[in-house]
Amino acid sequence: MLADIDYIEGIGLLAAALTTYSFFPQVYKTWKTKDVSAFSMTTFTLFFIGIVCWLIYGIHKESLSMILANTITMVLAFIILVFIFKYRKP
Amino acid sequence: MLADIDYIEGIGLLAAALTTYSFFPQVYKTWKTKDVSAFSMTTFTLFFIGIVCWLIYGIHKESLSMILANTITMVLAFIILVFIFKYRKP
Repeated sequence: MLADIDYIEGIGLLAAALTTYSFFPQVYKTWKTKDVSAFSMTTFTLFFIGIVCWLIYGIHKESLSMILANTITMVLAFIILVFIFKYRKP
Repeated sequence: MLADIDYIEGIGLLAAALTTYSFFPQVYKTWKTKDVSAFSMTTFTLFFIGIVCWLIYGIHKESLSMILANTITMVLAFIILVFIFKYRKP
């Protein structure tokens, strides 16, 4: 039973690590190039609000993986959103 | 107790709906413009693998919100990844 929980939480932590870390290269690339032409502002706005909801859900579910992942993803998605507003062409 | 579960699952379903739906405008925009210059391929590759892990985690946690959301997000992230490989400039 404990081994099962560890295995499941291992998958959860890997998921958290991957989906969280994945946004760093995007933040770095956008910070360097200031190119936001391809981004959908609707996508990143709704995604950010959705991540805030996942964070609330993870807190209620007492899921460490969800809390850690969604906190960091929320910050990174917010930075990308700021870049989109800052660098978009009128 | 049941009301608590309903409220929490309501937040979870809202989170699922938002983070899932959010990728549709991006898929549509990229399909129309074929502009993938701003995307980090590393980001979308790791994000896709991470979503697959979240799906496995959600199945183990028996979370309907996580299973629904991550299945659809996995498909949309895969489509964006295909667009990036197809439309990137060498």
